[in-house]
Amino acid sequence: FPSRLPNVGTTIFTVMSALAAQHKAVNLGQGFPDFDCDPKLVDGVTDAMRAAHNQYPPMPGVPALREAIAGKIAALYGHTYDANTEITVTAGATQAILTAILCCVGPGDEVIVLEPCYDSYVPNIELTGASVVRVPLTPGTFRPDFDKIAAALSPRTRAIIINTPHNPSGTVWTPAEMQRLQDLLAPTNVLVISDEVYEHMVYAPLQHESVARYPGLAARSFIISSFGKTYHVTGWKVGYVAAPAALTAEFRKVHQFCVFTVNTPMQVGLANYMQDPAPYVQLPAFYAAKRDLFRAGLGHTKFRLLPCEGTYFQCVAIDGLGVPERDLSEADFCQWLTREIGVAAIPLSAFYGNGFDQKVVRFCFAKKDETLRAALGRLARL
Amino acid sequence: FPSRLPNVGTTIFTVMSALAAQHKAVNLGQGFPDFDCDPKLVDGVTDAMRAAHNQYPPMPGVPALREAIAGKIAALYGHTYDANTEITVTAGATQAILTAILCCVGPGDEVIVLEPCYDSYVPNIELTGASVVRVPLTPGTFRPDFDKIAAALSPRTRAIIINTPHNPSGTVWTPAEMQRLQDLLAPTNVLVISDEVYEHMVYAPLQHESVARYPGLAARSFIISSFGKTYHVTGWKVGYVAAPAALTAEFRKVHQFCVFTVNTPMQVGLANYMQDPAPYVQLPAFYAAKRDLFRAGLGHTKFRLLPCEGTYFQCVAIDGLGVPERDLSEADFCQWLTREIGVAAIPLSAFYGNGFDQKVVRFCFAKKDETLRAALGRLARL
Ligand SMILES: CSCCC(=O)C(=O)O
Ligand SMILES: CSCCC(=O)C(=O)O
Repeated sequence: FPSRLPNVGTTIFTVMSALAAQHKAVNLGQGFPDFDCDPKLVDGVTDAMRAAHNQYPPMPGVPALREAIAGKIAALYGHTYDANTEITVTAGATQAILTAILCCVGPGDEVIVLEPCYDSYVPNIELTGASVVRVPLTPGTFRPDFDKIAAALSPRTRAIIINTPHNPSGTVWTPAEMQRLQDLLAPTNVLVISDEVYEHMVYAPLQHESVARYPGLAARSFIISSFGKTYHVTGWKVGYVAAPAALTAEFRKVHQFCVFTVNTPMQVGLANYMQDPAPYVQLPAFYAAKRDLFRAGLGHTKFRLLPCEGTYFQCVAIDGLGVPERDLSEADFCQWLTREIGVAAIPLSAFYGNGFDQKVVRFCFAKKDETLRAALGRLARL
Repeated sequence: FPSRLPNVGTTIFTVMSALAAQHKAVNLGQGFPDFDCDPKLVDGVTDAMRAAHNQYPPMPGVPALREAIAGKIAALYGHTYDANTEITVTAGATQAILTAILCCVGPGDEVIVLEPCYDSYVPNIELTGASVVRVPLTPGTFRPDFDKIAAALSPRTRAIIINTPHNPSGTVWTPAEMQRLQDLLAPTNVLVISDEVYEHMVYAPLQHESVARYPGLAARSFIISSFGKTYHVTGWKVGYVAAPAALTAEFRKVHQFCVFTVNTPMQVGLANYMQDPAPYVQLPAFYAAKRDLFRAGLGHTKFRLLPCEGTYFQCVAIDGLGVPERDLSEADFCQWLTREIGVAAIPLSAFYGNGFDQKVVRFCFAKKDETLRAALGRLARL
């Protein structure tokens, strides 16, 4: 039968993690921590299972978790979502993004993505029969280019997907940029799918600009986040969507037929753990230290460091390296780096539909300090 | 914006569970056990979390779990699937069904469903832009009608969804029926999505007829099952798909952009637990005892009992009840029964696209014996 996604292979994250394992490379490719979560979180899930929280939760999620999420958003971003009708727990952010797209996009519609972008967005849109409209972020700085976004808007535009803090570039949108998006969309019916999974990894003096802070955006947005990134449990696959009641109603129609509901004991454990804001309040300082350690080490290499305002990703340009390495494609360079130097990275070209190659690769620094030092030791051989 | 699923509301299972809670009714509606899982299974997940299995597993699932699944299928149904290329772990059976449909069905295609059927199938198909072709099971017996299925096949038929043991009717397909389906599809390219989530609930002397037993079907089938039903952990949301490598490759293309992957500690715990076949081997006897207890009790009421060959559902006709109860629609009867008698049930009309009402309702007997006795006590007042 004809493939529904003929241009899709295995995700770059899976490919590079497998290659890293094969070559015993230090895996700074796929974004996940190599350290464990807080044992208190594990104890909470264990308690939930032992207290027989093992059957279906309510379809939109465990009420206490939805309330904790709404409480956090209100405290941090000043917008109050109703836990009953405006918050839905999802099987990770990827399911949330697919479900948001499925619930509002169909054949004939257009969806704007800002490239480079996470590799699930485009296939998600393609599955609906809608058209993908790719708008590049400004080359070099990865900042949104509002003239290009304005030019891409059409009467068929149903939604735009934004992502701050931005994977892979680590940029964080400014209040002025958020305001410009709000103004640009004000006269339209365009929905916003706001991927905010790195919301708790924004480095001082910046702060996270959630669409929840901008009433004109919040009213048209699905906000998507993930506990996996925030609490060092990427394998637990729990995330959430916050959206106005009318959008949430449509989201849940699809959600109930996509996964029906999400792991109960994990939800109960997370609900208890969220009562203490310290883990996410302290996260920026925790990751800033790792970023600084990693950047300081990279300063001794021929990589050219790009800024890192948020996320746990550090991008570097390979244009200062010696020939022939700097002449390899990003993808070939990452393969070579994994095999020969023993450090896995992700080529930025994987985040573009046309494989645009600007000779930049991404490292993940969500790793133990000793892992980062081991990687830096190997990279010093470059 | 226009709804993508304008005819969809909240699932009947969610509606009836909420109504049951509100009226403190005994909830025999939604299919889930009111008893807990084996503590050994909880211990296994706890051990996995404490051993730091908290980050992303491989995209298709934890290898040990995929091997255990392949081993079980080979042992029970005599067909060997390759754990690497033919088994994928999913976030429950609902995600598996959606993903199977998304990966092979598109606009212009037709998909056959046999009504009554589980309420996610039709919206799943509609989201792809394909047409749903509804073929009724034989009225009264709920057995497949192969003349009607043959008549529904067209050059545009991409897939057929089958489900044995059957929710809601409790019928179990016979070897002759499986053989007829195999023969009917032999000259076609039609794929089979085989929902086998109740595979371990088939009552003696019958056995489960997996499509895996029929090579001509296995070669064109996605087999879908669920640990939630088998191990009394409906809230854990872990299931799987077994399919030939070419189908699995397409399945995984969508899976990786649907949920990316599935809860790691649950997968590790399930992999260990599956080493012992006793829990699923003993399941038919466990549920047969509950079925017999419940049927014996219903024998003292005016409900007319339908057969129950498999699943944990018992259907009853309400045509022998007194007026006005027997004249209510199934849906109104279920509401009335929940409010006035204090027992929740599910109307079969919820499993039909046109709301066909044959005055039959479904009870779930996956409950403690004391719960079943409490429900029977209330039903005796009818
Ligand atoms: C879902 S696997 C990839 C993790 C991630 O978000 C990334 O590496 O960009
Ligand atoms: C996914 S909720 C419903 C559970 C179930 O399979 C049923 O009751 O039919």
